[in-house]
Amino acid sequence: MTPVSSRGSLRVLGIDPGLTRCGVGVVDVAPDRSARLVYVGVVRSDPGDPIEARLALIAAGLRAVVDAHHPDVVAVERVFAQHNRSTVMGTAQASGIALLIAGERGLPAATHTPSEVKAAITGYGSADKRQVQAMVARVLRLDELPKPADAADALALALCHAWRGGGAVSAASGPLTPAQRAWADAERGARR
Amino acid sequence: MTPVSSRGSLRVLGIDPGLTRCGVGVVDVAPDRSARLVYVGVVRSDPGDPIEARLALIAAGLRAVVDAHHPDVVAVERVFAQHNRSTVMGTAQASGIALLIAGERGLPAATHTPSEVKAAITGYGSADKRQVQAMVARVLRLDELPKPADAADALALALCHAWRGGGAVSAASGPLTPAQRAWADAERGARR
Repeated sequence: MTPVSSRGSLRVLGIDPGLTRCGVGVVDVAPDRSARLVYVGVVRSDPGDPIEARLALIAAGLRAVVDAHHPDVVAVERVFAQHNRSTVMGTAQASGIALLIAGERGLPAATHTPSEVKAAITGYGSADKRQVQAMVARVLRLDELPKPADAADALALALCHAWRGGGAVSAASGPLTPAQRAWADAERGARR
Repeated sequence: MTPVSSRGSLRVLGIDPGLTRCGVGVVDVAPDRSARLVYVGVVRSDPGDPIEARLALIAAGLRAVVDAHHPDVVAVERVFAQHNRSTVMGTAQASGIALLIAGERGLPAATHTPSEVKAAITGYGSADKRQVQAMVARVLRLDELPKPADAADALALALCHAWRGGGAVSAASGPLTPAQRAWADAERGARR
């Protein structure tokens, strides 16, 4: 469904929406499911600033990442009304900005729930954040865990999107490494 | 706090955020609290379209209104997590877009709750929608109720913002008409 670019791999921009810290991660995922870190960062806005200025700052930061790295697709964490009431509206507004940037640039966008991300990355939907971060670091061959957590979450979201069908190929197309097999199992587990 | 433009009146853009129908209303409110309709309309997006395309369409529609009518300030209805669960996230995302447009154009923005709007327009916070619409039509000297309801709500929001302090002057600056006195009482009621 999502086109694989002429790079031969799928470039996914993952966005963990937030007003104070909006995590941003870009990865290239090859047809054999191996992945490479392209960019990771956080777009911040000051809680003391007016909401309209904060959202404009986040939009500018996200546009800069899109224009610098040209993703094929944007994956945004899905926000639920029942979670974390005091900040959920700001998170929802930031997620709207993230999706808007995709729409304005003509990029397809998808949303994934935190459980989908955890299942895709670790094999089970109730994994804790640290397990997810450790797996992200291993897959991307990073020497340490990406920080802050919002940045790691954005990378996890991007990997999740690619592995859940964005650019994945079946196991029949070539032998999987043990780690790739574990991820494939995790993905199948997430679909059950 | 909100600057009164060189027009001598305050031009307020009210936005009733929504994904399928986003109400938009522009009014000029004079220092004597009298008001004039400048523009009213609805920005629509198709529920069958991808969310990123819908948000981009809403953003383009709102930018067109801002660029055509040059408001001094933008007033957006405040969205609560506990209301109307199934659509609240889309409404929150649309409200984020509305606030973003204000921020990108350097315009101050404010949010008002539905109760604040009802109290400012009719004198009590639990007024029904039809009472609010009838009062909006009377204040703006419209021959009929603005339709759809989202458009009327946007006008009510704009009037509420101006009357709650955006451009209001005290009664000492001149005699109030009976209707204006009623609105002043309503506004004081809302502040209690």
